[in-house]
Amino acid sequence: MQAITVHQGKVTYKPAHPDPVPNDDEVLIEVELAGICATDLEIVKGYMGFSGILGHEFVGRVVKGPRNLSDKRVVGTINCVCGKCDLCLSGLSDHCRQRTVIGIDGRNGSFSDFLTLPSHNVHLVPDNVSNDEAVFVEPLAAALQIVQQIRIEPRDRIVVVGDGRLGLLTVQVLSARGGKGNVVLVGKHEEKMLFCEKRGIQARLLNDMLIKPEWDVVVDCTGSANGFATACRLVRPRGKLVLKSIWHANSPVDLSPLVINEINLIGSRCGPFPDALKALSSQDVVVNGLITSRYKLSQGQQALEKAAAPNQIKVVLER
Amino acid sequence: MQAITVHQGKVTYKPAHPDPVPNDDEVLIEVELAGICATDLEIVKGYMGFSGILGHEFVGRVVKGPRNLSDKRVVGTINCVCGKCDLCLSGLSDHCRQRTVIGIDGRNGSFSDFLTLPSHNVHLVPDNVSNDEAVFVEPLAAALQIVQQIRIEPRDRIVVVGDGRLGLLTVQVLSARGGKGNVVLVGKHEEKMLFCEKRGIQARLLNDMLIKPEWDVVVDCTGSANGFATACRLVRPRGKLVLKSIWHANSPVDLSPLVINEINLIGSRCGPFPDALKALSSQDVVVNGLITSRYKLSQGQQALEKAAAPNQIKVVLER
Repeated sequence: MQAITVHQGKVTYKPAHPDPVPNDDEVLIEVELAGICATDLEIVKGYMGFSGILGHEFVGRVVKGPRNLSDKRVVGTINCVCGKCDLCLSGLSDHCRQRTVIGIDGRNGSFSDFLTLPSHNVHLVPDNVSNDEAVFVEPLAAALQIVQQIRIEPRDRIVVVGDGRLGLLTVQVLSARGGKGNVVLVGKHEEKMLFCEKRGIQARLLNDMLIKPEWDVVVDCTGSANGFATACRLVRPRGKLVLKSIWHANSPVDLSPLVINEINLIGSRCGPFPDALKALSSQDVVVNGLITSRYKLSQGQQALEKAAAPNQIKVVLER
Repeated sequence: MQAITVHQGKVTYKPAHPDPVPNDDEVLIEVELAGICATDLEIVKGYMGFSGILGHEFVGRVVKGPRNLSDKRVVGTINCVCGKCDLCLSGLSDHCRQRTVIGIDGRNGSFSDFLTLPSHNVHLVPDNVSNDEAVFVEPLAAALQIVQQIRIEPRDRIVVVGDGRLGLLTVQVLSARGGKGNVVLVGKHEEKMLFCEKRGIQARLLNDMLIKPEWDVVVDCTGSANGFATACRLVRPRGKLVLKSIWHANSPVDLSPLVINEINLIGSRCGPFPDALKALSSQDVVVNGLITSRYKLSQGQQALEKAAAPNQIKVVLER
């Protein structure tokens, strides 16, 4: 099969990678559409020291598996867990101590014609959710994780920092959950501001924003140390800062605002797929227009370069 | 009067600094004993850009003030607040937007013969609490702030990282509040380990510690980026990390464990003086033996150098 692999920072298109063979408790999925995420770009730079097939966002079709899943359109959670360790047994299986993570840690990912996944990782896609929408389930679930972790009060003033893929999903989730009047996106790109305005979401350019510690909830989706510094300076004393960003390399960071203002920082990672599928199916969150470029798998390297461009939102790979 | 000042990193002993004059709502306090804190050392390195008389830990006697305070032995909270801003009015006056902070931000501190302080910052010291104990009220209150901010569950396994002044107070507070069997101090200094053992507190050298993400609550009292990195790696997934440390300069920090393990980081600063005075008066927390060196105010520079030595706990200044 075709696959895009990474090894020690080198991305390679392999036209004839061996096909994966599912175990008894796994399904074989034919990938129909895969999304490129900021984490993929960090992995290429060396984050997690990953070696193998890249990618963790996808929608596909089960070509081998139990009858109830057979030939069904599915998405899949990325953490493959043991079900037996202390964390799995305490309900924190996303944090399983023995986990592998597709395209990130110890397990091949979705930038390929086929991938295998444990059957219980798989979620059926409702008929009224297209592939172009379903490919957003993983990052949308990550955005929805925020409202699992913190309670949003009706009066909370919320700012999402970063107008990339995750920022745009997050601001929509929080607008839907919190109340549009109280939620603002802050970014650097004029076209993203327009994207938000069209959807009735408040957005401001960073340069037009007063950087003062006045916001009850700040979500950092910037993926950079500079962005994190800005986010820190926006949180009011005793406010909440949700950290969704990961950036490779030990960048200089000043944590003193967290102490001085007694900020509550909440690290946030993967989220609930059922909630994301429901949000898409009910049009609670609209992702149309977020795909800005499409590439064939064989053009994977160009697609990854494109995804790093500031004017891009979601770049997808198709067969 | 005598005073130890700092200006652009230069510490100076001034034998004839002008005496402070209290306003109508302030008291004049004759300082009897002042403590040197890690924050003072950071301020000397440039933190907060402070210029003026150093010091924020003290016990003294009111020599000018309202009758109920006159000639009384007192300690004082360090934040001088407006009482009128949004934060003061919402019960967060320690975070007052107009605040000055003695010896730290816009207001002279306690390394002097006299200081002025708003009357409502002053707390009476009970007769059974000595000056050598009362000088610990400010850092002890900071340690007690932790149990104001997070709920300690009986089964929580707790580790305090850093065997400096604040770490030793914090481990005592958490042992008293949490249950000694579940609380461990981690440090680098053999003599601090012995200090804890004598008090029935568990302590381990960092080199003897398995650095695994298995602790429910981790408190970083190290005051260094390296210490913070260790603390991050000790918190279990979805565990709590209390950040009490401040270090100057933008040190490289890897925040990815906070996201990957969805850690809840709680910045923590000043705490409740009444609780600290009560803990000392009732011997709930014992601070005897924590003062390791005494200097005259005129030897302030040497005292600050001494306070930076790894074998020191609390260095105090007396007149």
